[in-house]
Amino acid sequence: MDREFVVGVIGAGRIGKIHIENLIRKVPNVKLKTVADIKIDAQLKQWADKKGISNLTTKATEIFEDPEIDVVIIASSTETHAKFIQEAAIAQKHVFCEKPIDTDLKRIKETLKIVKNEGIKLMVGFNRRFDRNFMRVHEAVASGQIGTPQIIKITSRDPAPPPIEYIKVSGGIFIDMTIHDWDMARYQACSEVEEVYASGAVLIDPEIGKAGDIDTAVAVLKFKNGALGIIDNTRQAVYGYDQRVEVLGSKGCVLADNEATNTVRIYTAECTNIDKIPYFFLERYMESYATELKSFFNCLQNNQDPTPNGEDSLQDVLIAMAAQKSFKENRPVKISEIDK
Amino acid sequence: MDREFVVGVIGAGRIGKIHIENLIRKVPNVKLKTVADIKIDAQLKQWADKKGISNLTTKATEIFEDPEIDVVIIASSTETHAKFIQEAAIAQKHVFCEKPIDTDLKRIKETLKIVKNEGIKLMVGFNRRFDRNFMRVHEAVASGQIGTPQIIKITSRDPAPPPIEYIKVSGGIFIDMTIHDWDMARYQACSEVEEVYASGAVLIDPEIGKAGDIDTAVAVLKFKNGALGIIDNTRQAVYGYDQRVEVLGSKGCVLADNEATNTVRIYTAECTNIDKIPYFFLERYMESYATELKSFFNCLQNNQDPTPNGEDSLQDVLIAMAAQKSFKENRPVKISEIDK
Amino acid sequence: MDREFVVGVIGAGRIGKIHIENLIRKVPNVKLKTVADIKIDAQLKQWADKKGISNLTTKATEIFEDPEIDVVIIASSTETHAKFIQEAAIAQKHVFCEKPIDTDLKRIKETLKIVKNEGIKLMVGFNRRFDRNFMRVHEAVASGQIGTPQIIKITSRDPAPPPIEYIKVSGGIFIDMTIHDWDMARYQACSEVEEVYASGAVLIDPEIGKAGDIDTAVAVLKFKNGALGIIDNTRQAVYGYDQRVEVLGSKGCVLADNEATNTVRIYTAECTNIDKIPYFFLERYMESYATELKSFFNCLQNNQDPTPNGEDSLQDVLIAMAAQKSFKENRPVKISEIDK
Amino acid sequence: MDREFVVGVIGAGRIGKIHIENLIRKVPNVKLKTVADIKIDAQLKQWADKKGISNLTTKATEIFEDPEIDVVIIASSTETHAKFIQEAAIAQKHVFCEKPIDTDLKRIKETLKIVKNEGIKLMVGFNRRFDRNFMRVHEAVASGQIGTPQIIKITSRDPAPPPIEYIKVSGGIFIDMTIHDWDMARYQACSEVEEVYASGAVLIDPEIGKAGDIDTAVAVLKFKNGALGIIDNTRQAVYGYDQRVEVLGSKGCVLADNEATNTVRIYTAECTNIDKIPYFFLERYMESYATELKSFFNCLQNNQDPTPNGEDSLQDVLIAMAAQKSFKENRPVKISEIDK
Repeated sequence: MDREFVVGVIGAGRIGKIHIENLIRKVPNVKLKTVADIKIDAQLKQWADKKGISNLTTKATEIFEDPEIDVVIIASSTETHAKFIQEAAIAQKHVFCEKPIDTDLKRIKETLKIVKNEGIKLMVGFNRRFDRNFMRVHEAVASGQIGTPQIIKITSRDPAPPPIEYIKVSGGIFIDMTIHDWDMARYQACSEVEEVYASGAVLIDPEIGKAGDIDTAVAVLKFKNGALGIIDNTRQAVYGYDQRVEVLGSKGCVLADNEATNTVRIYTAECTNIDKIPYFFLERYMESYATELKSFFNCLQNNQDPTPNGEDSLQDVLIAMAAQKSFKENRPVKISEIDK
Repeated sequence: MDREFVVGVIGAGRIGKIHIENLIRKVPNVKLKTVADIKIDAQLKQWADKKGISNLTTKATEIFEDPEIDVVIIASSTETHAKFIQEAAIAQKHVFCEKPIDTDLKRIKETLKIVKNEGIKLMVGFNRRFDRNFMRVHEAVASGQIGTPQIIKITSRDPAPPPIEYIKVSGGIFIDMTIHDWDMARYQACSEVEEVYASGAVLIDPEIGKAGDIDTAVAVLKFKNGALGIIDNTRQAVYGYDQRVEVLGSKGCVLADNEATNTVRIYTAECTNIDKIPYFFLERYMESYATELKSFFNCLQNNQDPTPNGEDSLQDVLIAMAAQKSFKENRPVKISEIDK
Repeated sequence: MDREFVVGVIGAGRIGKIHIENLIRKVPNVKLKTVADIKIDAQLKQWADKKGISNLTTKATEIFEDPEIDVVIIASSTETHAKFIQEAAIAQKHVFCEKPIDTDLKRIKETLKIVKNEGIKLMVGFNRRFDRNFMRVHEAVASGQIGTPQIIKITSRDPAPPPIEYIKVSGGIFIDMTIHDWDMARYQACSEVEEVYASGAVLIDPEIGKAGDIDTAVAVLKFKNGALGIIDNTRQAVYGYDQRVEVLGSKGCVLADNEATNTVRIYTAECTNIDKIPYFFLERYMESYATELKSFFNCLQNNQDPTPNGEDSLQDVLIAMAAQKSFKENRPVKISEIDK
Repeated sequence: MDREFVVGVIGAGRIGKIHIENLIRKVPNVKLKTVADIKIDAQLKQWADKKGISNLTTKATEIFEDPEIDVVIIASSTETHAKFIQEAAIAQKHVFCEKPIDTDLKRIKETLKIVKNEGIKLMVGFNRRFDRNFMRVHEAVASGQIGTPQIIKITSRDPAPPPIEYIKVSGGIFIDMTIHDWDMARYQACSEVEEVYASGAVLIDPEIGKAGDIDTAVAVLKFKNGALGIIDNTRQAVYGYDQRVEVLGSKGCVLADNEATNTVRIYTAECTNIDKIPYFFLERYMESYATELKSFFNCLQNNQDPTPNGEDSLQDVLIAMAAQKSFKENRPVKISEIDK
């Protein structure tokens, strides 16, 4: 018989609320016991009330010290991730943590070491892996339907850039935005990256350039299994959130196109019209958040290692760092140059 | 400021549960107070508990007699609809009722008369009108984008027939299955039907024929605005739940295709593959149930008449009856022959 | 080894010229010897010259009397078809004739009798059967891939009506325009039609109504194998020449969509645009004229009976007549009522 | 009034024959006078006869020395191109020459100098620019419909590799196969290339590696207008000849997908099937050869400079050379490093 997991959630912002809703409605055999957030206002209280959340606290330690709680979901701000993972691990609680674990290599490795030593399970929230389309692509690759992967091609374009203030502290496009694509590329290639060449330009907003970042980027990956990867990014695709993945293999090719807003075509004397693709990640990936959480708890239930895990998150950050170096020095950079 | 509506639900079967979930999660400014069902077992109790429903009763009268309740949602079995609508109307409560009101013409008219006399609002649950694709088609027609409607074409095919026992009491394909398409045709043509010609055959299962019904049907409609309609139905499309709508107009044509399971194409040395379309109405129309309920409460909030209403349901039944007569006598039948 | 066929062509109008070009460029093992046309002007002479046609005559008899000629292609005006087929048959020449053989039932039958008695081969030019898309549909049906056909659905819409003067002598929409669809329906159903119900309206141009015709039509067919058919026609689809065919079978469904002008999609901040579909039959079906001629000569080469043949043409006319009667009397009409 | 051009063709191999057929059938106001080929056998004689070509010679000089001939079409083997262009230019004849002019930089420049000095017009046969889909993409870019180009993405995959013997003398994938894509990238970006980074691998056939070449390649381009380009190539896409082009711009995105073999979809209980895309370049690009020739003669008729011209061909070769160097040295290479 299935056991019930008792869960504490740290962070009740936008993404934390999504996880809480999914926990309540979509994930079987879980009991949400405590929600911690550094700032509890009237609005959050009301929301928690409506959701039937009784324990609302500003102290994450309440979660770590609660012997009844088995699982911690970390959806707080990025700089707290490593600390909370470590505390949860030491308290012998399994962890689902939003990406990334950290942006400092040493810190990530130290955290993963503690996770390993404590023997807890850790999943990192690369939700795009749980998009129904990209899962289907992966299935075609992993099942051998398209043979050995040869070229992985990812189109990943945001509809509009974030505020300049955000850009300034984002760590740069390769760690902030492309991080999803490094992870997707590894997921679809079924292999680790050996070398990256990254190029880019400021074509959208000169302010982004002044902030020391770029807004348009392309990258070439070489995988350990011999496959090649190409990725293109823009901070502003005016026609919507363009998210496509393609894998060419020795026996075929698999493509995931954008989701449509509806299936309607309108034929007129001038042309044929289709509505715009959905705007942004909440529209496109909402379902994937529930699927990833179900996958995580399913792994716990069956004592399996969840994926993507801490090692995945580490690899993604390594590629991002290599890409930054590649762009700066305008030359291909091996991951081994970063991860000595 | 928006007022809050207090709601009672009669019937907590499959569709009743969907409405209750949508009430709780998706509709603003409503309070679900009481749920009535003729059979309350442990499972239903547990389900209600989890949903936070305190009043669970076997007596629908509790709802009608509760002065606090403003709105009644009727999702009980078809033969109770007319009775409950009448009782709700007399108790001065607005009603959302599952389709159809009744299958007896006199009974429907009597019910509508009471609804009118009591001045309450009544919406009938033709949820397909709230499918995002068909709403988009309607928008193209109603806005004049494709000009005057000339041909309405509906493809409506179930993936598998219901049990023979169900077929026997269903009232026949034209009232049981095509009822959705009569309503869709009227919705998209923006006009009432004047005449119908229906034809059909037993091509799927001889048992359906022995039960006095057909399993494959086509129909031609003539609308009062001059437009023509064609509908095709089958009880068994092995490739999935095929639901398409098309309107040809003087300035263009609008088509809603099937929803896709995913956007993935797989190219191999043999052919290109796409996954099957979603199986059945719960997969296809789940979102529409929430959209229709939101539309209903939005009308109440703004004191507008909801659509589709009792008159729509009456018209749909009249067309079904004309279609039955047409099929039996193999000739076109005017609605005025039925509705003298 | 392949033998060479010597060919005479009667009629060098638009369609005759297409056949002549295809004969010269696309059909192997044929020699075009003589072209007859009632009116030979300077332009035609120049055209014939450029094509290397030496024998240009106003007398069709030159073709019938030429012992070297094996095959006659008849592309003259409709009222001459039966006469020329008969003369060719008596002269022991195989015939490819443009549709229809005639519009008079007695005349068609008399012609077919002569064809049979003389033992020559006759193909009638229903070129749409040789469209690559509709051939692919037929292949899916005929090979059993989609099982037993149950519903045949044809969308056939012209981009613009012909001149009123043409409408007046056209014989009406069911014989002039729908004739192609009757033939397509029989081709895809792999069965003969038993009964037809036809309905229609004047929605495009009142002048068409004044000329005694309709411009918008729908029809329901019952086939001898139990399948049902639905067809819709309009004289004016402003968005282009809409030609689609669909067959639902017990094991699946096969659809042929419109040909695209190009494969380009343009995504903008407003919507996604695709160019209009090709305008009319010369754009859409040009390739099919060559394919049908190659099929005809291939049959001659291998001593096989070509399809569609005289019997096909007869059946198509019978359905057209039944449809006219059905529309006039507003009731389904059996083919046996016409073909007593 | 339009003048008539008298044309000589050098080279009557596969591509020469395509040009000759198009000259005869598709291009107005031209007279084909002489065809030269180094090897005239019975088969070629017969073919020429059937096409009505009277002058068939082994001596190209006959064409250059013929004062009546205005235009020379060069479709002989690559190593003869430069020589024949020069001779034609000196003889004051306009030239349409198959790609490339030469593979030696000095030779190309010397040839272009003579062309310029003699004032004749020269078009180089990059036929893909005249594919109806890619022309439509270019139109969307050039007209400003998608704003300033930012990312050009080209997918260009052959269905099967050429024989190893061909690979050995091909000059390598970047000059033999990607040459089309360098040209397409420049055409769609509306800008010249500044820098290229090329990467690749042997993933199809180790024999290709032994021959000193690669069979899978990706490249990143930086254009002078700031845009970025990405190209991917394989010598073997088992699912067919994959030819797609995409341009992201500041106001939208335009995509050209593959041409379909037909428009048919087959839905079964297992999945939905579409036929494979057409096999190779003769199927895909046949129409483009006629369009390019018409464009060339249209330029001559109107005294305009044809495109793509000698400078285009030079730029394409420069990029290929930079790509070769980039691949060899695993670093981005500026065009200015090659073209000092």
